[in-house]
Amino acid sequence: MQAVRLEGFGGPEVLCVRSAPAPTPGVGEILARVASSGVNRADLLQRKGRYPAPEGWPQDIPGLEFAGVVEALGPGVERWQVGDCVMGLLGGGGYAQCVKTHGSAVVPVPDTIDLVEAGAIPEAFMTAFDAAVMQMELRAAETLLIHAVGSGVGTAAVQIAKALGARTLGTSRTSEKLERATALGLDHAVAGDEHWPERVLELTEGRGVDVILDLVGGSYLEGNQRALANCGRHVVVGVPSGPVASIDLRALMSRRATLKGTVLRSRPLEEKAALAAAFEERVLPMFTDGRASPVIDRTFPPQGAAPAHRMMEANENFGKLLIRWT
Amino acid sequence: MQAVRLEGFGGPEVLCVRSAPAPTPGVGEILARVASSGVNRADLLQRKGRYPAPEGWPQDIPGLEFAGVVEALGPGVERWQVGDCVMGLLGGGGYAQCVKTHGSAVVPVPDTIDLVEAGAIPEAFMTAFDAAVMQMELRAAETLLIHAVGSGVGTAAVQIAKALGARTLGTSRTSEKLERATALGLDHAVAGDEHWPERVLELTEGRGVDVILDLVGGSYLEGNQRALANCGRHVVVGVPSGPVASIDLRALMSRRATLKGTVLRSRPLEEKAALAAAFEERVLPMFTDGRASPVIDRTFPPQGAAPAHRMMEANENFGKLLIRWT
Repeated sequence: MQAVRLEGFGGPEVLCVRSAPAPTPGVGEILARVASSGVNRADLLQRKGRYPAPEGWPQDIPGLEFAGVVEALGPGVERWQVGDCVMGLLGGGGYAQCVKTHGSAVVPVPDTIDLVEAGAIPEAFMTAFDAAVMQMELRAAETLLIHAVGSGVGTAAVQIAKALGARTLGTSRTSEKLERATALGLDHAVAGDEHWPERVLELTEGRGVDVILDLVGGSYLEGNQRALANCGRHVVVGVPSGPVASIDLRALMSRRATLKGTVLRSRPLEEKAALAAAFEERVLPMFTDGRASPVIDRTFPPQGAAPAHRMMEANENFGKLLIRWT
Repeated sequence: MQAVRLEGFGGPEVLCVRSAPAPTPGVGEILARVASSGVNRADLLQRKGRYPAPEGWPQDIPGLEFAGVVEALGPGVERWQVGDCVMGLLGGGGYAQCVKTHGSAVVPVPDTIDLVEAGAIPEAFMTAFDAAVMQMELRAAETLLIHAVGSGVGTAAVQIAKALGARTLGTSRTSEKLERATALGLDHAVAGDEHWPERVLELTEGRGVDVILDLVGGSYLEGNQRALANCGRHVVVGVPSGPVASIDLRALMSRRATLKGTVLRSRPLEEKAALAAAFEERVLPMFTDGRASPVIDRTFPPQGAAPAHRMMEANENFGKLLIRWT
């Protein structure tokens, strides 16, 4: 099979299309022919040698998600059949024509969604759902503040929160991304300049927000502490602005606030399977009835992995970038 | 009635025994004659003018807990009768011969516990139970690290965790307090010097602890981030070492760690009532069968409130300090 491999660590130029041995599905695993694989910020870190794949996953092929067609079944797989359209998270190896993964970690692609476009769903929507809904227990009538609302996870969070009946606020430093997020259903667009905490407090009548889905990190922490309501929950999904910041533990106490970090990649299989099952039950119906749809900025051929990485590194994408294999 | 009142804000000398009007119980409230009231670190802050009582509570009489005898009932109180021995949290006003509070916020004093000693139970045991068990969901076979294990909350946490079947580690900068905590059931005593994170990691085979009950705050945050296991939960109950510290959000993500601040005093009545109900069901039996008992360092007469504050300010107490009214 063909794959985008890392020829060493470094800039986007280390991403090269090469042939690689196709994986063989083991017990409980499926082999899928990939239609598309999403590009994620974590792939940029891995490319630089700063985020190795967990044990058991390809070390030299990036890619944390895919959509494709089941091509072969390992022993003991009962749910899937050859020809089924599936999508899911991977620990690595997604930038390839074929991937193998456990049958319990994938979900069916809804009939209403194009198979190539489905490759934009798993990381963005599972991360947003897991972080905001499963972990932070976002409820209807609560407010969700999404930092980097134009990201893949941000655009997914807007749709999921809206479907749940929550009110969304979103920040971005790019006004065009705020306009596009508003068109997607974002209730309050907030410019990501130094005044965003005050604007969030104004928009919530001084109360602050119930949940923060944070894809910015360190540079926003002080503002996040001010913008959080009593008993508010702040979940950190990414730290592109830097990981280290100053925190006021007394403010955390008086607000009875929760700060939590999360990552999907390193979770054990049983947790990934549990998330896939909850996602199938609660989020997939949103795609079927049109409340949610993947947000794709651009689709690249495999040779375009390097420009795709450059585009994400420059924060130019609104929603997802895909590598297409069919 | 007599009460210890704040004659202005400042050092312990502002605490003076004066007469004050006895409160009148309103709808759903009880009036209790106080046997004893515990001294808490928050009282020191209030005395300095830095922690005012919530609305509806006496502003000039400190005291966040009491044990005593029901002396009168407001309209609508069905559970209690005059003469019942009760104990509970207060928003303020505890340093007095009489207090009023809502009937749903108190619990019965177990028959096995002396009424004066019971005044050492509510803040310490409810805080430890609420923070470690209710909020952080400490489970049997998990590990709990207690900072300032010789404090009222710390000594309560050792007993509750042991009763639940959890393993306890506790830090203190005073070796005598570590010895006394060990006698109380602490599994691993850890000197609170600069090497405590390494010792905690050694004692947990490099894994780290599942839950941290933190009564130290800022100066231990960096160590707490290292000492926490994957999916570990860190709850901050007090910050005597200072509130501000540097946090590594990437470490929080990779560990999938939770950091939460908590405070009891400002909670709405319905939450205090829910905690009292859970406490009655799950913790009071521990006193009845001897798995838990209040830890009292010294009992002072009302005129001794100032020396009691000085003793707590100097971190000299192991367990609780009480003001006795009978």
